[in-house]
Amino acid sequence: MKLSSKNLESRLNTIYDAIVVGGGMGGLSAAIYLARYGLKCLVVEKGKGRSFWMQELRNYVGIDPTTPGREILNHATKQAIEWGADFLRGYVEEVVDEGETFAVKVKVGKQNSIYPVFRSKYLIAASGIIDILPQLDDMQNVYDYAGYTLHVCMICDGYDMWDQKSVLIVANESQINAAFVLNWFTPYISVLTHGLCKVSEEMRRKLAEYGFPLYEAPIARFVGENHKLKGVELVDGTFVEATTGLINMGSIYHNQYLKGIKGLQWDGENLVTNEMCQTSHERIFAVGDLKKGLNQVAVAVADGALAATQIWRNIRRQSPPRKWVENIPPSLSAV
Amino acid sequence: MKLSSKNLESRLNTIYDAIVVGGGMGGLSAAIYLARYGLKCLVVEKGKGRSFWMQELRNYVGIDPTTPGREILNHATKQAIEWGADFLRGYVEEVVDEGETFAVKVKVGKQNSIYPVFRSKYLIAASGIIDILPQLDDMQNVYDYAGYTLHVCMICDGYDMWDQKSVLIVANESQINAAFVLNWFTPYISVLTHGLCKVSEEMRRKLAEYGFPLYEAPIARFVGENHKLKGVELVDGTFVEATTGLINMGSIYHNQYLKGIKGLQWDGENLVTNEMCQTSHERIFAVGDLKKGLNQVAVAVADGALAATQIWRNIRRQSPPRKWVENIPPSLSAV
Repeated sequence: MKLSSKNLESRLNTIYDAIVVGGGMGGLSAAIYLARYGLKCLVVEKGKGRSFWMQELRNYVGIDPTTPGREILNHATKQAIEWGADFLRGYVEEVVDEGETFAVKVKVGKQNSIYPVFRSKYLIAASGIIDILPQLDDMQNVYDYAGYTLHVCMICDGYDMWDQKSVLIVANESQINAAFVLNWFTPYISVLTHGLCKVSEEMRRKLAEYGFPLYEAPIARFVGENHKLKGVELVDGTFVEATTGLINMGSIYHNQYLKGIKGLQWDGENLVTNEMCQTSHERIFAVGDLKKGLNQVAVAVADGALAATQIWRNIRRQSPPRKWVENIPPSLSAV
Repeated sequence: MKLSSKNLESRLNTIYDAIVVGGGMGGLSAAIYLARYGLKCLVVEKGKGRSFWMQELRNYVGIDPTTPGREILNHATKQAIEWGADFLRGYVEEVVDEGETFAVKVKVGKQNSIYPVFRSKYLIAASGIIDILPQLDDMQNVYDYAGYTLHVCMICDGYDMWDQKSVLIVANESQINAAFVLNWFTPYISVLTHGLCKVSEEMRRKLAEYGFPLYEAPIARFVGENHKLKGVELVDGTFVEATTGLINMGSIYHNQYLKGIKGLQWDGENLVTNEMCQTSHERIFAVGDLKKGLNQVAVAVADGALAATQIWRNIRRQSPPRKWVENIPPSLSAV
């Protein structure tokens, strides 16, 4: 059922089997599996996650490579609800581990917000990351290219940059190292720091060895038309020719709500999990980009299936077995 | 490129980066990723694998739940070829580990077969399994229901069996234990051995305790219409009422071609892999149902992405770096 401030009251006494924080590819896959296992689950989605911004999902089996991420998200959300999942637009502010249950406090509504608390036996952290984009006065100018010819994932879109003049946009020196992987796809790389970091002599020398020019002035604007990049204009008036680019400025991790929970093993901002996406906290699972591993839609979707399946196994093993009572001979049913 | 007996000659001197044995969900995902990494790969598909038989793929994010497996396979095959993968209909008879390369002998054509040998640096074992079905004189009667209301995967289709009268069809006693998981979805389970095994007193007692009747006569035919099961008629004339069923008679593993290769760690008929789907043989990867783990389309698709990515990393790290030569100052390029 789709929940909102108008009807969520009815769920405040529910103990969900699982609450899924994040309705991206991994969270929705988990919800579809949980629902099909007949488990009660609630997906809380804040909106506009990483896959929402994907203009084309090019490497996922079964989907036309021109399919936008939001189309898949809408489709899977509808499907999960149809099979019995609850879905709520909101932002998870805090999770408290109550021992048997989690208390999940959600901010609902941007204005006149309310703060309902939902409860569940298991928690699936599927809240992912969002890519940091270069901040310009005119952000629409960034959005006109980001996800089209200005990419954020080399694994997904390196192929579409093949042998093109490209910009690599970074926010710190270590991010420049992506140039020495991106050159698998194209050697025509100009590195742009957007004025955000200093670059060591050692790195300058390495870039020079590879013939990758370094531009340290802030970006003024992206130039092109119909989402097709032609180049980047810097504030010092330089024009850097490029028909494609990779933004590699790091990510914001949506994991604050987990920071108060004891017993979670972190690797930086990522959660460490086992092969079923279970974290070191036995009732918390992590899927997708928040989990340590490859940030790919295909992986997130599998993660959701795995986490949901393990939760089903745990719950099933603790539940009384269902019997076909009318067939049980009285001598046995008395046992 | 689509290869056939007519044009495969042109590829006999190619050293592929990877040969993918099996063009199911996992193999095609691997091929899509390999092609988008710009790697040369060949998919060898014998046809009619497990996902080919899926009438509806119900739990995969982004796809309508009525989509048949073969539609996704055709779509992904076309996509992989478009991005540069080679694809050949054939049966992999033997793989010889030559140290730096694998020699992969393929039987092409059912009549007047030819046996070309292709070579690759890496091998992806994506040849999967096929479910054993009850053998009746009229196999069309089985195909009329298998994949529709007669399922082979409880995780995929348990939901669609909810509280329905069902048959569990097994070939040996240990397979009967699925009844005590299937009862999560429905307690109305009749167990059919199709005359294939003896059942111990202990198991008989457990089935009686759960009220699950046991029928040991062979199946004569499945009864129903439009793929909708109504029941199963046994050769002794018994009619077992059921609107759905689960076939749990084990699987045939397509892994014979790997049996001569040293250094592979097996768990029964499954290959043991690390988190990137690499087996204990560093140049062999396993994805999908052949890999130890959950047999799900979502998992196979992720496996393909992971295996291809690790192969790309290995090959990339061993390749000379591409430089933007025109920008390199003479003083540095001389180094």
